[in-house]
Amino acid sequence: MARMMRLAMVVTALPLAFGAVSAVAAPIDDAALMTEAKALFEPVPQVVPKVSGNAVTGEKVELGRMLFFDPRLSASQLLSCNTCHNLGMGGDDNLETSVGHGWQRGPRNAPTVLNAVFNVAQFWDGRAADLKEQAKGPIQAGVEMNNQPAVVVESLKSIPTYVEHFKRAFPGEADPVTFDNVAMAIEAFEATLITPASPFDQYLEGNAAAMTDAQKRGLKTFIDAGCAACHGGVNLGGQDYYPFGVVERPGADILPPEDKGRFTVTQTAADEYVFRAVPLRNVALTAPYFHSGNVWDLNQAVAVMGTAQLGRDLSDAEVADIVAFLHALTGEQPRVEYPILPASTNATPRPVLMMPN
Amino acid sequence: MARMMRLAMVVTALPLAFGAVSAVAAPIDDAALMTEAKALFEPVPQVVPKVSGNAVTGEKVELGRMLFFDPRLSASQLLSCNTCHNLGMGGDDNLETSVGHGWQRGPRNAPTVLNAVFNVAQFWDGRAADLKEQAKGPIQAGVEMNNQPAVVVESLKSIPTYVEHFKRAFPGEADPVTFDNVAMAIEAFEATLITPASPFDQYLEGNAAAMTDAQKRGLKTFIDAGCAACHGGVNLGGQDYYPFGVVERPGADILPPEDKGRFTVTQTAADEYVFRAVPLRNVALTAPYFHSGNVWDLNQAVAVMGTAQLGRDLSDAEVADIVAFLHALTGEQPRVEYPILPASTNATPRPVLMMPN
Repeated sequence: MARMMRLAMVVTALPLAFGAVSAVAAPIDDAALMTEAKALFEPVPQVVPKVSGNAVTGEKVELGRMLFFDPRLSASQLLSCNTCHNLGMGGDDNLETSVGHGWQRGPRNAPTVLNAVFNVAQFWDGRAADLKEQAKGPIQAGVEMNNQPAVVVESLKSIPTYVEHFKRAFPGEADPVTFDNVAMAIEAFEATLITPASPFDQYLEGNAAAMTDAQKRGLKTFIDAGCAACHGGVNLGGQDYYPFGVVERPGADILPPEDKGRFTVTQTAADEYVFRAVPLRNVALTAPYFHSGNVWDLNQAVAVMGTAQLGRDLSDAEVADIVAFLHALTGEQPRVEYPILPASTNATPRPVLMMPN
Repeated sequence: MARMMRLAMVVTALPLAFGAVSAVAAPIDDAALMTEAKALFEPVPQVVPKVSGNAVTGEKVELGRMLFFDPRLSASQLLSCNTCHNLGMGGDDNLETSVGHGWQRGPRNAPTVLNAVFNVAQFWDGRAADLKEQAKGPIQAGVEMNNQPAVVVESLKSIPTYVEHFKRAFPGEADPVTFDNVAMAIEAFEATLITPASPFDQYLEGNAAAMTDAQKRGLKTFIDAGCAACHGGVNLGGQDYYPFGVVERPGADILPPEDKGRFTVTQTAADEYVFRAVPLRNVALTAPYFHSGNVWDLNQAVAVMGTAQLGRDLSDAEVADIVAFLHALTGEQPRVEYPILPASTNATPRPVLMMPN
């Protein structure tokens, strides 16, 4: 009798055991998963976050919006911040690496500007402490906007409407049109570029119906497989630096040997091929992937992360679930009115299209 | 006695005579000037105009707005209609000639897209009958977007949200995602890009206070000197073709001998160096000037027009007044929300950055 019962239990248990192996049939305990997730992640706030040392005022945001879209920040007067950080395309350019002055190719894939305010530092190697420092980089980089701070300031000072905007955005300053204030205004605008209310955010806030079963399984796998160890917090990443890869270095097509990542910033051997963990918010909008931009398929990117960072061959079903979860990270995209920019004057420096010497 | 009176009259009349010569003191008869102007010009309407053969529906305008800003219409996936027809900069790029695929320079200055719906035909040489025909040109031009209709259609069909938009914009069509419909949607959006309520429009509608005295003097000179003969109608131009110049051909810097204008379209000797009269709406926002884009200063452009088209050396005061009047042609710029574009899929053709063979 006892033996028959044990056998019956085994037989009954079989479908459950198979169920546990197959991702499709796994039961989802929403309460437990939400609790687990809340310990690792935070929702994107509905309000514009504070920025250290830079009050996000309406006047500054308005000026920053103009500057963000103004191609006159570049020497050619053709490339704006929005060229590579396109607010209609997930906050980046969806190119492998960006195209800049003279059709030159940049060295790395453009990171999204959306939610970038939540990152611990900016650029793939974290070489800029914050967005105001970051903003100064591409304006001056020869392969990007190829401009000089003095020319930027001369241009803005030659346009009376801009001077008025700077006065309003930086009240009390005797000479408000400065390159530092250009960066401050852009940072203030970028702080507004947050994408709340994604399905994942709604789930984190207790709405079990906000994510599909596949997305919930993906979240569970994302946590259990170890992805969340690096991709945590509000941005699911962007908070610390890790080697690519932790377990197995990917091929040269994905990790070109000449780009040593954070080593260039710290000159520390341990930082060779170290990069900031990518923030995964809106990642479904920002193909291609990795600093090299050589992987276009999000499924492939997840699989590469499995082998490179976790030493694990994720199954097709696991990859599919994680990708479904990553789609749940697409939030409400910022609605921005395209700015009307004041006209140049006869005193405005002319566009320079030729290549730098 | 009679002699003394005559002398007194002469002395008294002197200031009046000087006044008639000096533009500064000329009295302005607003009622007469308004009547004269209304016979030559029309205000920009406050409502979106009808477009021949293309009903301007909300769905079509919405789709057209997305396409206008979508860089995936270009082979590089970097250049959009808005790159050269920047809605924040008077509807053009403020470059001498445009920059396209591979940093190539286009042959002519980009005309503004604002109020272009009112032009008799499009391009400097009128080679496109309307905006839907125009829209197809730059997408395919090797020096501009360098794309092919089949690739554009393949891209859009690979993106489900775009397919839905085409279905809504072109209801009842079995296969609505076509290159023709791309152009129809862009034309519908562009029909909304009108700039009413300029000071000149308000003046035309009877508000004498809408223009300054200098602007009114400029309008009077613009009419009396003969400018309005070619620059009339709603767009103050854009309605017919004229040699550059009618009286005296400008120098090769302004009129490069290799660009024979409308001759290329008609192969008629009389059309050598013939161009469509430039529409002057928002001209203060669209430097540099002429098809060559070689003149940056609006005063200089007006002076060149005087000698080349009218055979007349306009005085500095006349030029200044006309330029003041041209500033009164700046209307309310279109307020457009920057579109959120649907993401590419694995089936979307990849960007092609290399130069064409």
